[in-house]
Amino acid sequence: MRWAARALEASSSRWGGSVSLSPAAVAVWGANTEVGKTLVSCGLARAAADAGARVLYVKPLQTGLDEGADDASKVAAVATRGGRRHAGEVEVSTLWGWGAAVGPHVAAVVEGKPAAGADVVRATREAMNAFAASCRGRSGLVLMETAGGPLSPGPEIGVVQADLYRGLRLPGVLVGDARLGGVSGTLAAYEALRGRGMDVVSVVMPEGPEGMDNWKAVAAYLRKEEFGSRVPSVRVVPNWPAPEVDLETFFSAEGTRDAFAAAAEELEAAHSRRVDELRAMGVAAQRKLWWPFTQHTQVGQVTRIDARAGEALAVFREEDGGGEAKVEEMFDGCASWWTQGVGGSEEGGRLARSIGHAAARYGHVIFPENAHAPALDAARLLLDGAGKGWASRVFYTDNGSTAVEVALKMAFRRRFAAQGYPEGASPDQYGVVGISGSYHGDTLGAMDASPATAFNGPRQTPWYRGRGLFLEPPTLALKSGRWVVTSADGKEELDVHGSRDEAFDLASREELPLRARYAEEIEASIDACERGGGEGAPGCAGECRVGKCPGHAFGALVVEPLLLGAGGMVLVDPLWQRTLIHVCRHRGLPVVFDEVFCGLWRLGVESTAKLLGVNPDIATYAKLLTGGTVPLAATLATEDVFAAFQGDAKTDALLHGHSYSAHAIGCAAAVHSLALFRDPEANPNLPDKGADRLRDVWDENKLYELSRVHGVDRVVALGSVMAFELEPEAGAPAGYGTSLDSRTARVIHALRTEHAVYCRPLGNVVYLMVSPMTPKATCDGLLDKALKALRSTGAPVV
Amino acid sequence: MRWAARALEASSSRWGGSVSLSPAAVAVWGANTEVGKTLVSCGLARAAADAGARVLYVKPLQTGLDEGADDASKVAAVATRGGRRHAGEVEVSTLWGWGAAVGPHVAAVVEGKPAAGADVVRATREAMNAFAASCRGRSGLVLMETAGGPLSPGPEIGVVQADLYRGLRLPGVLVGDARLGGVSGTLAAYEALRGRGMDVVSVVMPEGPEGMDNWKAVAAYLRKEEFGSRVPSVRVVPNWPAPEVDLETFFSAEGTRDAFAAAAEELEAAHSRRVDELRAMGVAAQRKLWWPFTQHTQVGQVTRIDARAGEALAVFREEDGGGEAKVEEMFDGCASWWTQGVGGSEEGGRLARSIGHAAARYGHVIFPENAHAPALDAARLLLDGAGKGWASRVFYTDNGSTAVEVALKMAFRRRFAAQGYPEGASPDQYGVVGISGSYHGDTLGAMDASPATAFNGPRQTPWYRGRGLFLEPPTLALKSGRWVVTSADGKEELDVHGSRDEAFDLASREELPLRARYAEEIEASIDACERGGGEGAPGCAGECRVGKCPGHAFGALVVEPLLLGAGGMVLVDPLWQRTLIHVCRHRGLPVVFDEVFCGLWRLGVESTAKLLGVNPDIATYAKLLTGGTVPLAATLATEDVFAAFQGDAKTDALLHGHSYSAHAIGCAAAVHSLALFRDPEANPNLPDKGADRLRDVWDENKLYELSRVHGVDRVVALGSVMAFELEPEAGAPAGYGTSLDSRTARVIHALRTEHAVYCRPLGNVVYLMVSPMTPKATCDGLLDKALKALRSTGAPVV
Repeated sequence: MRWAARALEASSSRWGGSVSLSPAAVAVWGANTEVGKTLVSCGLARAAADAGARVLYVKPLQTGLDEGADDASKVAAVATRGGRRHAGEVEVSTLWGWGAAVGPHVAAVVEGKPAAGADVVRATREAMNAFAASCRGRSGLVLMETAGGPLSPGPEIGVVQADLYRGLRLPGVLVGDARLGGVSGTLAAYEALRGRGMDVVSVVMPEGPEGMDNWKAVAAYLRKEEFGSRVPSVRVVPNWPAPEVDLETFFSAEGTRDAFAAAAEELEAAHSRRVDELRAMGVAAQRKLWWPFTQHTQVGQVTRIDARAGEALAVFREEDGGGEAKVEEMFDGCASWWTQGVGGSEEGGRLARSIGHAAARYGHVIFPENAHAPALDAARLLLDGAGKGWASRVFYTDNGSTAVEVALKMAFRRRFAAQGYPEGASPDQYGVVGISGSYHGDTLGAMDASPATAFNGPRQTPWYRGRGLFLEPPTLALKSGRWVVTSADGKEELDVHGSRDEAFDLASREELPLRARYAEEIEASIDACERGGGEGAPGCAGECRVGKCPGHAFGALVVEPLLLGAGGMVLVDPLWQRTLIHVCRHRGLPVVFDEVFCGLWRLGVESTAKLLGVNPDIATYAKLLTGGTVPLAATLATEDVFAAFQGDAKTDALLHGHSYSAHAIGCAAAVHSLALFRDPEANPNLPDKGADRLRDVWDENKLYELSRVHGVDRVVALGSVMAFELEPEAGAPAGYGTSLDSRTARVIHALRTEHAVYCRPLGNVVYLMVSPMTPKATCDGLLDKALKALRSTGAPVV
Repeated sequence: MRWAARALEASSSRWGGSVSLSPAAVAVWGANTEVGKTLVSCGLARAAADAGARVLYVKPLQTGLDEGADDASKVAAVATRGGRRHAGEVEVSTLWGWGAAVGPHVAAVVEGKPAAGADVVRATREAMNAFAASCRGRSGLVLMETAGGPLSPGPEIGVVQADLYRGLRLPGVLVGDARLGGVSGTLAAYEALRGRGMDVVSVVMPEGPEGMDNWKAVAAYLRKEEFGSRVPSVRVVPNWPAPEVDLETFFSAEGTRDAFAAAAEELEAAHSRRVDELRAMGVAAQRKLWWPFTQHTQVGQVTRIDARAGEALAVFREEDGGGEAKVEEMFDGCASWWTQGVGGSEEGGRLARSIGHAAARYGHVIFPENAHAPALDAARLLLDGAGKGWASRVFYTDNGSTAVEVALKMAFRRRFAAQGYPEGASPDQYGVVGISGSYHGDTLGAMDASPATAFNGPRQTPWYRGRGLFLEPPTLALKSGRWVVTSADGKEELDVHGSRDEAFDLASREELPLRARYAEEIEASIDACERGGGEGAPGCAGECRVGKCPGHAFGALVVEPLLLGAGGMVLVDPLWQRTLIHVCRHRGLPVVFDEVFCGLWRLGVESTAKLLGVNPDIATYAKLLTGGTVPLAATLATEDVFAAFQGDAKTDALLHGHSYSAHAIGCAAAVHSLALFRDPEANPNLPDKGADRLRDVWDENKLYELSRVHGVDRVVALGSVMAFELEPEAGAPAGYGTSLDSRTARVIHALRTEHAVYCRPLGNVVYLMVSPMTPKATCDGLLDKALKALRSTGAPVV
């Protein structure tokens, strides 16, 4: 009972909600209307009750009541054998009903009785969970019967039933059509369900006219289509009775009884298998997987993910000691490692179908010297979006690291092919100018372009050598209600603003003396590091620090613009960064924006160039590029950079490439996502056509409130990212090796367990990341939860 | 005429065949049977003819002839206005007919008149191309009407119509269902077509009963589902006439006429747009894309790829000067950069649907400390397959390069954490033992583990430094009919065998004195390079060669086992390689197999460990891992290697990861593909259950014949790879910079243009690569074509 109450509470939050796995539950789908869904429900309900199980039949949407259609009563009558069985054993429930025998979307309008899809799902879930709670360990079966076919509209036009109920993750029973044309209808319904990530346990269909044998064609197809335990059974039942035959006569006949008994047993077995598999995933993962960035000795509970549902993860939960099992939705507060883009479940489904189409049409086709529409269309969208006004070429790779490695190759060639490679320089003298706290990826080249951190020490990779000058940046943050620019050493308040927008008003801030100070310091550091000798420059990652600096030849400025992500969600003073870019460009260095994290609307703009008011020569994109589905990266470049690789010889070309370069599936996902992000009709955060900035989704007042909570050092929020850093605790290790009982850990724990928000810390930083399409209302809820979690963890655990 | 004849010839080859784009051609699909497909064909045919176009109506499969069903006659009557129009303007054709009104798969069996799907497609293509040829520039329209719904079986049970005709790449007209339940049926049919990579231009459907308005629900859904020019129109036509109404009356009514005139015009416009888009792709690609490994100044014709069709690429072709346009199939002889795995078109479709399911169910979900079924299932298949007997852990990354970078990090830790890091060693002293000619990827770490080549010189990346000892290997090849082991310097025949299998009989060859000689030479080289000083060892990539060698600390042996792929398809003597592995293991070096290219059945075995008889400690997989669809990689390791990263601190862990680590879509593709490869029912090359080696697909006699062709230096063939190297021509540059008029280039050109085989050279090496599931008959055809191409290019062009 306690559990049921909690489930109801959870299900009322925007992403919350759980579905019990304690009684088996299935959705009954039909190849189409009039194929006998309700008869199958009758047969299954009766068989389950006969076997001693409690049964819930729920019909969320019923039309045709005026014409006598009342599927729930029919099921009740058959399952209780005309009332002879105790009624408490078979519960039936119709949630919404209309009189006319038309689709619910039509009836809702005609009869003036609308229903919101979200309410239908919530009510269905509540009915199921209440039943589950009432079972108290007795075996049970829930049959949720849909209306029409899987792609019949629900109560709202444009949203079909299969999308409506998808989040419930109910395995399906599909009632097949034995009539002429029924093979196509049955298989198309099957694929519509599978294509929405749902599983079909069993196809139940009547034998059909002699010699037509639709069930044979369906079974033959499914045997080839799936393999292993995924092949659904095809269960043949006697032909449906003529209207004049009494249903009791039909269902009490031996053939009918046996067929449905076997079908019901199979559902029960499939359900047990599903729960067993979900349960076993934790141990299997601990034994076979090797997780990235994970100390396996510190892993407690493995999160077993059954599915994604919009911006939520559907997670398997089981009380210790084999108690109540359920699938619960948690908000994906880390945007699954900063990748997620398309927002809701329906949008996700459409993106999935774009991917399915590309997979079927192209699979993968080799790229060099070739053209295919997805690669071209994605390139067009990139050049017309993030690259607008400067880029003319798109080079595809597989992820952020490889995009950065390519960017470095491009920059070095552009820099040195023009002015000549410095005579006698060793590989170690070539370097980049970068920012301390930057992170560009995990392959050696990307790491060499980053300062030394815990990620690249000699025990991680003895080949690492920080190659360049990494400058300490002044930062911008909301601190106790004020937007403050703090000096790199953290000791000085350089500038204070009443709002973030004011701090980003670079035209005004350029007039400040601060700008000249920034420029001087940057020039001096680069000069010293280029010159070499002596002690070298502060920030130089070469061997200068021990007095052996040979001097450096810089090939590029490489920056993560504005927000240093992996470095701890540090917002660099935009004025300083813009000054850095101007200084380096003036010195002839190609400017590389690593926008793998911060680009493509992550920070509210397609490219941070819009906020900095200055364009790069080369820029990298990944993560959001495919909307959060598959790896794909793009390095954009100016025609000048491209020209540096043209020549008579093939060896002049950029000799870099991966087998899946510009793979069509990823490019199709990119086309879909990039178009969606910038479509004001689809994206609620894009104010109107032509806007190049998303609406702010993080409520300013709530942010100010957060920044004033005791122990919160700073808050940043930009685009889809919000983060706060907690003050270090006495005696706690700083940075990456956050102690497991730190306040940060407690905040994370509270968000995960009490607020169903899945998030991960970055040192003492807690961040929340949504998609560029997430409505402000969701973000309001997240901020409220963050405030609650912070307040509930104020005092250290004794 | 000439063109039509060529098309017929091409279409008779296994992968050949083209479809003319000169008259517009569409497939007419129905939401199901009995929705009015033929009436729509009638209306479109009549409207096109009215507008002055020639019309071909082709019905490949007609059932119900005994009951008066004869769609072609109906269309002919309506389109010619009961014969009043000149018959030559409207051609109709029924290709296969049966008497009973049941599905063709049933009729074919019952009436003893079977039809093979491949023949149906060929005949359809021929009818269309003959009509195209006869149009001679006059405007025309081809209507290919299907039978039943898209997933109704064709003439063979288990193969549905949508799969049957998929290779024709005809845009579709979908006839919708206006009855109750028709929305679901219409949309499910639409998705079944889209999910097979097909495009639907227009949904045509009757208005339907008043107030039901299925067309509105269909249109509302499609507007959300697609965007831009991909939204199909929904065209409403008058309700179908009652049986007693004369068709001429119906079709001559103004409303009907106007509706179909508009629909036919739209088809014509959509067709023009499609051709224009295909045509424009070449120029757009030249302007916007930056291809990998491509000197843009050398690109002549861009290959415009419209789709993949099994192992073939569907390529847009147009005669110069705006002549005949068509889509032609070319065999994908480079397996799209060594990635392709699943073989035929139907299998590819199933893999695509697995991907679509995973995309809908999971999208991407964050991986560290989490578990999801695709990641676990793929890990199980890898550990039970390539990793069997040695590996216990799977680490996922995105591609071969990243998999190798991870392998290096693993190996170094395993090596040095145990015995301690050498005191005071600089990053440059850490190295690997490897093989000259190896290639491990394009990121810096993978390159540093490879010897210097054209790919990594200072102009490509000034940071490159070959870190290790790269030994020159003795090689094995078929030369003029004998399998010869040649010394590394190419001067000595070390061993000769009558067959390849004999050369791979390592148990016998271990007894040879050659084995001891190999071991001694390897030991001496490693000793010298470890010691440092003086001149260093041959093969040392450090600075030893100029007398400054500081001595090396080796962290791993890293090899591409057996076949050096990018190095030119060089088969290393397996005895030498096995000896190398034994020597290094004895010295305590972890052994890394880079099986990115050669693993997962590429060489006929799941792991080359099966052929070498020795297991690695770490191995990398990618390319074939997803069957040839999306990037995904796995690094497998022993529990010993894994243990070296366990500890109390997070910083002890392997701190490497990519955002899309273990992305569910790729893992699902891997589960599907790995299971398929090793399923003897699905894979014709897997002789029987329990076999761990594929059948040889390259005919031994043909290989011998190839090896004896004048100018062929050597031939190798193993698993799905066959390659031959041509002798260098006098005055031609060797290696990567192959001259465009070399014989190699001429062979490639002949294969592409005369034999419809898409292939690419590697220096003077021509290779053909198929999937692990390609039947031997296809390979026989390829070898014949290779022989023809070789013979036709014997003499140099003057």
